[in-house]
Amino acid sequence: MHDDTTSDAQPANQTADADDSSDFTVTPYDVEGTVDYDRLLEQFGADRLTDAQIRRFPDHPMLRRRVFYAGRDVDRYLAAAEAGETHSIVTGIGPSGPMHLGHVLVFYLAKRLQEATGAYVYIPLSDDEKFYAKDLSFDEIEAATRSNLRDLLAVGFDPERTRIVVDRLDADVLYPQAARVAAGITQSTVDATYGDPDNVGLSFYPAMQATHLLLPQLVHGRHPTLVPIAVDQDPHVRVCRDVAAKERFAADKPAALLGKFLPALDGPGKMSSSSDAPAIELTDDRKTVREKVMDYAHSGGRVDIDEHREHGGDPAVDVAYQYLHTFFEPDDERVEELAAQYRSGELLTGELKEIAAERIGEFLAGHQEHRAALGDLETELDPYRLTEDERARLRPSVFE
Amino acid sequence: MHDDTTSDAQPANQTADADDSSDFTVTPYDVEGTVDYDRLLEQFGADRLTDAQIRRFPDHPMLRRRVFYAGRDVDRYLAAAEAGETHSIVTGIGPSGPMHLGHVLVFYLAKRLQEATGAYVYIPLSDDEKFYAKDLSFDEIEAATRSNLRDLLAVGFDPERTRIVVDRLDADVLYPQAARVAAGITQSTVDATYGDPDNVGLSFYPAMQATHLLLPQLVHGRHPTLVPIAVDQDPHVRVCRDVAAKERFAADKPAALLGKFLPALDGPGKMSSSSDAPAIELTDDRKTVREKVMDYAHSGGRVDIDEHREHGGDPAVDVAYQYLHTFFEPDDERVEELAAQYRSGELLTGELKEIAAERIGEFLAGHQEHRAALGDLETELDPYRLTEDERARLRPSVFE
Repeated sequence: MHDDTTSDAQPANQTADADDSSDFTVTPYDVEGTVDYDRLLEQFGADRLTDAQIRRFPDHPMLRRRVFYAGRDVDRYLAAAEAGETHSIVTGIGPSGPMHLGHVLVFYLAKRLQEATGAYVYIPLSDDEKFYAKDLSFDEIEAATRSNLRDLLAVGFDPERTRIVVDRLDADVLYPQAARVAAGITQSTVDATYGDPDNVGLSFYPAMQATHLLLPQLVHGRHPTLVPIAVDQDPHVRVCRDVAAKERFAADKPAALLGKFLPALDGPGKMSSSSDAPAIELTDDRKTVREKVMDYAHSGGRVDIDEHREHGGDPAVDVAYQYLHTFFEPDDERVEELAAQYRSGELLTGELKEIAAERIGEFLAGHQEHRAALGDLETELDPYRLTEDERARLRPSVFE
Repeated sequence: MHDDTTSDAQPANQTADADDSSDFTVTPYDVEGTVDYDRLLEQFGADRLTDAQIRRFPDHPMLRRRVFYAGRDVDRYLAAAEAGETHSIVTGIGPSGPMHLGHVLVFYLAKRLQEATGAYVYIPLSDDEKFYAKDLSFDEIEAATRSNLRDLLAVGFDPERTRIVVDRLDADVLYPQAARVAAGITQSTVDATYGDPDNVGLSFYPAMQATHLLLPQLVHGRHPTLVPIAVDQDPHVRVCRDVAAKERFAADKPAALLGKFLPALDGPGKMSSSSDAPAIELTDDRKTVREKVMDYAHSGGRVDIDEHREHGGDPAVDVAYQYLHTFFEPDDERVEELAAQYRSGELLTGELKEIAAERIGEFLAGHQEHRAALGDLETELDPYRLTEDERARLRPSVFE
């Protein structure tokens, strides 16, 4: 199956050349500057999605609009999905705080793909990584884990085909598998991919991450896996693809579906809890969403109304428009219309913000309704945890 | 409690200076040359046991005869043992093949200490490390694990006060604790202590090893722990002592009780499965033991009988004598007598070998009898595994 025998591993630090005015840095631990998504593909060695590939995916605004714009090996995944053969999606989160809008969209995409083609969806929560990488206590990480789990459960995945794992909670099966992976990852690969790690937890974590991406295959046997992931997380996929190609694993290299970042409200960087502008939290009510959008959303409009009416605004840098375009206005014609009206000056920045705030608030109200309806977390999570039978396939067979 | 605030970490590679004729190397992964045990103490920064300390330990030939000859912080352990306060011993094994004579003696020492003062004994099996460090499959490691477990069970520890853990089998509790430890161990500490690791498993393993040494305290609360260990494993203890001193752990630095190696039959190195001479396996019958000792035991005698009768032999380099002295002849007077007779020429090498083979065969027959009486491994191991209550203290509290 592995016709692609070349290594995917590339240095991850994608700082642009000094003579380039648009410097940017993209690593799994750092995104800075204005990202040139095309250059990133060249540097990472991934492929822009073709129109044909987009059409083969189940229809979704984030694919139609190329928010997910690139990938590796997506054809094999698409073929399995079309043929009704086993196929899976892995996308996770590191529980360092409450989830915000930028975190949740990929899970709604995964849910859509699951509904359309019956994909297994595996969702790992890397509570260990957050301890290794951040100055957080396990108490803080566990509070974030509980909160994130509620949001993931609120998305409404099919419990029959969805597995949520938490690294420390499911260490009985994850560590033994990560041990197999770890022996195949050199320290120099980690150093070259992520930079020199601060502690031995971060040295090891790529083995745990690769285990996440291989987990559906380790449970259900070899099959195509798709990893829809923000482009800054691509190095994890590349390390895993190299591991999967080693003979000790009967596993396909996971395919990647690479996405652009949801911009921060004050644009143009990635939405982040540590940005200057507040992130829109999944728990924000309509009033808070409106205030954040009105107060912080970077405008593509002109400095005053007269000038705006005359020359129009630029939707390409307007964050309110970007949010609508990314996901929150599902109707393509309506999105085009808003862009045209904004460019013409007919639509003012304030009006565009009102529309975006309304759509986001509506989305969050639905999400929050599902979240509020959840009962005891442990009970709610139970149908999504690995079954005893699945665990048995992953555990070491010390007693034969 | 931590009056010793200086770091224990020292480079582990103890190659002697080039101008010294007795070059030797001692690291956890390599022992070569004739070990100068005194120089090693200086280099490791450990203390020779005093006569008073030896007297405070429960009486045992390996202590009386200073096979265990040095340590760190043993007074605190001894005080707790004398006062009947909680105290524990940790000593483990890496399951890479059948256990031989050189592996098992420390467990009989631990059993003796447990019987005398009620020490908890924790025995970790590092099946993960063997995968990281050796070219072995998990099938091979699991076979070795099963075999090693039977030997450990044959020793006859008190199941109420003994816990045996296997890294991958008990990963549900060991990995979450190792994650806490890992964030406090820098990659540069690992590089300096063990040399550059080949893979990220070996980078991480010192965190798992430190977890082993802290485990009794993590289960039973802060108390003095003693780690009786061959001197080549001392770097593990030093890394753990530095970790224990960090504020996130309410743990005493584990004390070390450092032992000399049981020499290989062809002396003078450590008994090893990869030595030129065969190791004496725990499954060897009396006949095999006799053959191995007669054929391979390095002699301290003279080249022919006449010369030996006239000038006598040197017990200090005679491996058969060393075995008797280390453990297998429990009567001190008898050991002295054998040494005197050998030095005088009265006792020939062949006769000394016969005595050693007899004693070793006797010891192994007893061990093998207990091993043969064991039933199903999983059932036999069960009383020695961490209880549900103990596991609950070690597991992450994701659900509060």
